[in-house]
Amino acid sequence: MKVYLDNNATTMIDPEAYELMLPFLSDKFGNPNSLHSYGSETHPALRTAMDQLYACINAKDSDDIIVTSCATESNNWVLKGIYIDKILKGDKKRIVTTTVEHPAIGATCTFLESIGVEVTRIDVNEEGVITGDDLRRVMSDDVALVSVMWANNETGMIFPIKELASIAHEFGALFHTDAVQAMGKISVNVRDADVDFLSFSAHKFHGPKGVGGLYIKDSMPLTSLLHGGEHMGGRRSGTLNVAGIVAMGKALENATKFIKYEESHVRRLRDKLEDALLALPEVTVVGQKEHRVPNTILASIKGVEGEAMLWDLNQAGIAASTGSACASEDLESNPIMEAIGADSELAHTALRLSLSRFNTEVEIDYAIEKIKNAVTRLRAISSSYAYAPDWHKSGL
Amino acid sequence: MKVYLDNNATTMIDPEAYELMLPFLSDKFGNPNSLHSYGSETHPALRTAMDQLYACINAKDSDDIIVTSCATESNNWVLKGIYIDKILKGDKKRIVTTTVEHPAIGATCTFLESIGVEVTRIDVNEEGVITGDDLRRVMSDDVALVSVMWANNETGMIFPIKELASIAHEFGALFHTDAVQAMGKISVNVRDADVDFLSFSAHKFHGPKGVGGLYIKDSMPLTSLLHGGEHMGGRRSGTLNVAGIVAMGKALENATKFIKYEESHVRRLRDKLEDALLALPEVTVVGQKEHRVPNTILASIKGVEGEAMLWDLNQAGIAASTGSACASEDLESNPIMEAIGADSELAHTALRLSLSRFNTEVEIDYAIEKIKNAVTRLRAISSSYAYAPDWHKSGL
Repeated sequence: MKVYLDNNATTMIDPEAYELMLPFLSDKFGNPNSLHSYGSETHPALRTAMDQLYACINAKDSDDIIVTSCATESNNWVLKGIYIDKILKGDKKRIVTTTVEHPAIGATCTFLESIGVEVTRIDVNEEGVITGDDLRRVMSDDVALVSVMWANNETGMIFPIKELASIAHEFGALFHTDAVQAMGKISVNVRDADVDFLSFSAHKFHGPKGVGGLYIKDSMPLTSLLHGGEHMGGRRSGTLNVAGIVAMGKALENATKFIKYEESHVRRLRDKLEDALLALPEVTVVGQKEHRVPNTILASIKGVEGEAMLWDLNQAGIAASTGSACASEDLESNPIMEAIGADSELAHTALRLSLSRFNTEVEIDYAIEKIKNAVTRLRAISSSYAYAPDWHKSGL
Repeated sequence: MKVYLDNNATTMIDPEAYELMLPFLSDKFGNPNSLHSYGSETHPALRTAMDQLYACINAKDSDDIIVTSCATESNNWVLKGIYIDKILKGDKKRIVTTTVEHPAIGATCTFLESIGVEVTRIDVNEEGVITGDDLRRVMSDDVALVSVMWANNETGMIFPIKELASIAHEFGALFHTDAVQAMGKISVNVRDADVDFLSFSAHKFHGPKGVGGLYIKDSMPLTSLLHGGEHMGGRRSGTLNVAGIVAMGKALENATKFIKYEESHVRRLRDKLEDALLALPEVTVVGQKEHRVPNTILASIKGVEGEAMLWDLNQAGIAASTGSACASEDLESNPIMEAIGADSELAHTALRLSLSRFNTEVEIDYAIEKIKNAVTRLRAISSSYAYAPDWHKSGL
């Protein structure tokens, strides 16, 4: 049996989205900007896809959704665009963010610091989130942009985006959210949350890789990251990835239709898996269930090195993660575990399980059995755990 | 009959590349960075694709090819990266380019000027290119980067890249070429030409849209445009577009195999079409045949508005262009026609025909007949041409 439990890294494509994109990869290959039938025959599908994107996040007619190559591009665009518009050419000085953002925000901020931008990174609490008070404490009118993720990629914890956006606005700052891990898992309503910018990637909600988007409230000006031709109203240049856009629209539409199913069925399977994990001795899970997106578990299993666990699970056909795939190759400790104050030993025992609506109960039952076996086997051969199962309690 | 003669705008996908990408859009959907079999099963195909890219441009082991979302991204990356590294943080001042670059270079330079960079744009001669002497005349040791396209998107004219790169190096500047319109049409050898950076887009050589690359000589440092996770060695973040990369590798391999066929068969068909055009009264073609890539014709047909011609051809199932698809929606005059000194009237009569190895002789014969019919019909209803066929000679 193969069980895919790494949906926060990437997802299988929605079969309907896949079918829809094929003609635009083959026969209907025209450039949408061309003034002939090869170009214009792409327009109805592109329009449908854009309408789907607008509808799924409740954007207004005056808003913009600009297609990019992924959320990493969208995130870089917002931060660097705001730097140009509000800091280099304006009178603002600071960007405010958190210590647990995706590297697409974190590393971009580090780059901006290297060219003189002041960046404030707010520490998260033991649940891995920040509160409105945490944000208010660091705000002043020199802040150009506040950027906080909607849901964390490792823990699944949901941030209070509406409250944070409102506080940013009180101080005259713009508000951006990286919603990569929220889209398709919980309801994302840009009008209700009143965010100024929102990033997303199709491949996290059963769309294809290589396409994503940036929502821009009221089509406000923002210096481009990709200058060039008049694509996307001149805001993001580059020949349109028609197949990707068409598939992204359908994938988000379907994911949005299934939000209640995520809330019920996926949550129930996740909770079943989580309860089984917590029934094992010395297993902890980060963050309260109710405060997380319905699909994610970040567990720490004492005495079980994360990579060893992945290896055992992979042998059993189960795909999981020790944390973000964007850092997987590093074999480093899980960054959020460190951010919430876990010791380094604990951070190396992280196991992330992330479900999707395509997982079945049979798969989850199978995964529970295999995880139990792996924990038993790996603890038996773990020198630290076998010889001193309570070492972490004794303070040694 | 349908005849696609707009291959400089975009191309139909290579059928082999299409077949190869499908599994990575469906079953083999893993994130290559993941530490399980869904991730690792993508690695052999990715490695093959990267090897294909290296081999096709004759890159060395010490070189880098970084996959991007398109040449527009690659172009933005080089210009903005060099700005950060050599101008903002270094002691250089200038970027040198030409007046006929793609907007991905032109508009990026305009943006860089808005934040204080000095840009020198070299005028082209009547054939639409610059010479080594033209470049030498504006060079000094304050130039960080020279960026000149390998072949022009409108005329197909080939620039003397090897000579220009050598002159740039004489003055201690780096050399970048936008090779979008050269790749797959003529031999592109980065080691022979000794360029430092080279941009390309898959969809111009029968690969899919939404994927491209940047060649970086000797893996030299260049500040990232997309900061984030450790993808592509940390140089270009964002989850890898596996399907796109795999298809791009195969498409370039096949296009490279067909370079001799381009030189013979495609060139012969292009020349046949061009001779038929030139046999009509008052038609001119920009640039000498031998100095152009084998697939491109930019013609000016007196008295025939470019858009009217496109409309007639489209009715006959023939796809053509008045110039770059990146500006098509503007209905403006063709920019290169203005750059080479054509008057505005002439610039509005541009017709670009661009072939590929998938065009057949039957198609070209059909196109010749339909173009002739269109010229006759449109000249008959053109007030300026009908009443004063020789107006442009009389100086009126």
